[in-house]
Amino acid sequence: MTHTRIPHLHALVLAGGSGTRFWPLSRELSPKQFVSIFGGVSLITRAVTRITPYAENGGVHVLTNERLLDELRNHLKSQPGLEGCEIEYLAEPTPRNTAPAIALAAAYLAQLDPDAIMVVLPSDHLLEDGERWERVLRSAVLLAEQGRLVTLGLTPHRPETGYGYIRAGAPIVGGADGAGPLGFEVAAFVEKPDRETAERFLAEGGYLWNSGMLVARASVVLAELAAAGARAATLESAPSAEIALVASKVAAEAPALWTKELAREWFSTLPSVPFDKAVLEVSEVVAVVPADLDWSDVGSLLALEQISPADERGNVFSGHVVDIGSEGSIVYSADRLVATIGLKDLIVVDTPDATLVAPKDRAQDVRLVVDALRAADAPEIIETRSSLRPWGSWTRLTKGPGFQVKTIDVLPGQRLSLQSHQHRSEHWIVVEGHARITRAAEVFDVGPNESAYIPRGFVHRLENIGDVLLRVVEVAVGEDLSEGDITRYEDDWAR
Amino acid sequence: MTHTRIPHLHALVLAGGSGTRFWPLSRELSPKQFVSIFGGVSLITRAVTRITPYAENGGVHVLTNERLLDELRNHLKSQPGLEGCEIEYLAEPTPRNTAPAIALAAAYLAQLDPDAIMVVLPSDHLLEDGERWERVLRSAVLLAEQGRLVTLGLTPHRPETGYGYIRAGAPIVGGADGAGPLGFEVAAFVEKPDRETAERFLAEGGYLWNSGMLVARASVVLAELAAAGARAATLESAPSAEIALVASKVAAEAPALWTKELAREWFSTLPSVPFDKAVLEVSEVVAVVPADLDWSDVGSLLALEQISPADERGNVFSGHVVDIGSEGSIVYSADRLVATIGLKDLIVVDTPDATLVAPKDRAQDVRLVVDALRAADAPEIIETRSSLRPWGSWTRLTKGPGFQVKTIDVLPGQRLSLQSHQHRSEHWIVVEGHARITRAAEVFDVGPNESAYIPRGFVHRLENIGDVLLRVVEVAVGEDLSEGDITRYEDDWAR
Repeated sequence: MTHTRIPHLHALVLAGGSGTRFWPLSRELSPKQFVSIFGGVSLITRAVTRITPYAENGGVHVLTNERLLDELRNHLKSQPGLEGCEIEYLAEPTPRNTAPAIALAAAYLAQLDPDAIMVVLPSDHLLEDGERWERVLRSAVLLAEQGRLVTLGLTPHRPETGYGYIRAGAPIVGGADGAGPLGFEVAAFVEKPDRETAERFLAEGGYLWNSGMLVARASVVLAELAAAGARAATLESAPSAEIALVASKVAAEAPALWTKELAREWFSTLPSVPFDKAVLEVSEVVAVVPADLDWSDVGSLLALEQISPADERGNVFSGHVVDIGSEGSIVYSADRLVATIGLKDLIVVDTPDATLVAPKDRAQDVRLVVDALRAADAPEIIETRSSLRPWGSWTRLTKGPGFQVKTIDVLPGQRLSLQSHQHRSEHWIVVEGHARITRAAEVFDVGPNESAYIPRGFVHRLENIGDVLLRVVEVAVGEDLSEGDITRYEDDWAR
Repeated sequence: MTHTRIPHLHALVLAGGSGTRFWPLSRELSPKQFVSIFGGVSLITRAVTRITPYAENGGVHVLTNERLLDELRNHLKSQPGLEGCEIEYLAEPTPRNTAPAIALAAAYLAQLDPDAIMVVLPSDHLLEDGERWERVLRSAVLLAEQGRLVTLGLTPHRPETGYGYIRAGAPIVGGADGAGPLGFEVAAFVEKPDRETAERFLAEGGYLWNSGMLVARASVVLAELAAAGARAATLESAPSAEIALVASKVAAEAPALWTKELAREWFSTLPSVPFDKAVLEVSEVVAVVPADLDWSDVGSLLALEQISPADERGNVFSGHVVDIGSEGSIVYSADRLVATIGLKDLIVVDTPDATLVAPKDRAQDVRLVVDALRAADAPEIIETRSSLRPWGSWTRLTKGPGFQVKTIDVLPGQRLSLQSHQHRSEHWIVVEGHARITRAAEVFDVGPNESAYIPRGFVHRLENIGDVLLRVVEVAVGEDLSEGDITRYEDDWAR
């Protein structure tokens, strides 16, 4: 399929996220959108790939928070199929839910291109690609060009109680001759229903799942924010106009300044409010385009059922699993052997540093585990044993008394900061690729099956001078092995 | 408490075992008796510690099979409290259940000491130590001195259906004046009962659990084997006399020859039959000494309940466990975080390379998992990521394309074989202790935070010359990293 780019189309991929509902597969520094278990690539890679063919050149923008910026940049850089894709990374000054985030992006895009049409895509959903998606997108764009705020509403095929619904109103015509309506007015936004209500919605028809996807002119987003503020001006809590104002003020600065003190100060005065609440529910130009696409918000570990078809007993197994007679269960293993016997409607998720076992109907309570772990300052909620870095990643293999072993992967052309450690020496063994090592006044190259020793206190740097991955096994020896024992003298990422 | 040694007392600790019922905590090369989760030391260490104070000097004999001999020797050597304990290791020619094993040991011990009294102890049970144990043992020895085959029968406190029972008959007097009987005649051996029958046994009294522990003169064991054979001589299947004969023939050879071809050939003709069936059930000199001791045969993972007291919801948690509202469950974690939510009567066992999840009432079905794994040639049934060696142990940290990382622990004074590898080079970093390294014609010493490189093809050896543990991180680089790529030139264990 060849795609035609859509003039003025800009993608805004929303990539914040706290990583609690999908634990232990997601972590604070590796939230849901990084999870690569569906079809082998991460959810955010799928989101970016989904919109890139239609966007303007240079029109793919990823909005995240400062904490995730490096992780995200490096993650997408390493994903297959995105090598040639030019992505702009934006960090919001401080996390403030979707209304301030979308407002900021709208103000920024309107500056870049007064005719910009923005497609707001969550980065952590599953969505069907292909022709049906393209048709939905093009209908939404046509309505957006008419000045509408266009939401995408998924056609429900089950009485789901976990999503909000949109009740479609009158049809909006305007497509090609003889084609159906482009979309519908929005009669109402409906909160997550109970089971009975959800069944009624499904039977009656005309209800769609609220996907959180939005297509609109950037200028219309800003105008509607202002209008929503004006309309609600009698209410003390009406924040929309202020959101538009502050967003425009921040957007007038270069994106690199958004996370500096001033912008952060401005932004932190804004209320944490979703765009749906602040704008869509009160706007008079909202439309909905029905989308009959496979979709999931990957809202809990139950989404693991979508990894592969269930067996005849209703089980979904992924990874190295040996089962004796379980039913209706989800068993996911990242790398180790998981053996299960006679489970019923259970979820087992096994990762290199943490395992979760829970009944399927308690999947939402993973947040209770995360709360307990956070209260105990457990490292398992922050990150896995691996850590993404702007230059690549490292994985801790073991930590014993007085020593620690890691593998360090450095991307082609990248290098770590020029640094030293007060309390540990490091032995580096290159097992793949070619390294250039700086050690005090020396600079020398080290190839596969060669090693180098960095004594405690020596200023040093590791660089990948090859055009493939550099993989080093590092054995650190010393009393204090914490990540905090590092002095940086020079850094490509100004850390 | 000071103990008086009992003259002529020899302990025979039975330490074969296939490691299936306690998987993933036990493995083929690390069966149940190696498991160190109860009170921090292994079951076999507890067995040896339990009998050593009463045995003759040099009177502790451990009988195992050839495959486990090295593992066992090294395991016991490394256990706390056994440093000064002189243990004789015996390997049976080929595994043939307890009748041939006990016969062989009896023949051997009768040779060493015609008055030998043997105490046969399983190595994989939990048993209360202390004064009550000593009293039971001394009563049994008095009866054994009178020519009895003395079994120990545990007083039941619940209607257990998983054990065989012994019905006690007439009391046998002979203790100190005014003391109760030393033991009882055996009225009957009873197979594992159903629930109702077990409840009746408990209500009626006079029934004891058959523990598999035996105290008898070695000469009486041999005589009763012969007699049992004679008594059953009209039956084609009566094997006891032949067992006694072959056992005596093997025992006439030095133990080092038992696993050589000739003895193996003799032994392999014997039927695989338990001592209970072959002798006790037909002998006329059997007695039982009631033992009111805490005891468990650790017959399934349910024994994990004995690691620690249950919480108020009936859960037993061990290791790094975070739980939200489970009931009646057992959660054991060796080193990683395990999070559980709302489990009911489930077992979760998490080890470095395998996790098991099963309902408590399916605990016995672990053998089905082991069968499935064996059929698939899965390494997880053979051993963990760690492997005991006569000189210490190693643990695999990771294996990637073209490299592998291990930690190698060498016990004080020990050394690996003089060896070479055709396909891999090795980088050794000493992180603890002091090594002497042989590399082709060189011999040099390497201390903590120092390293050495062993190029592919070089003959080399690693030795611990200190008096504490030597720990080395080994990074191997090469295309073929299998354990099979090793040529041994000289080995302290003649491998």
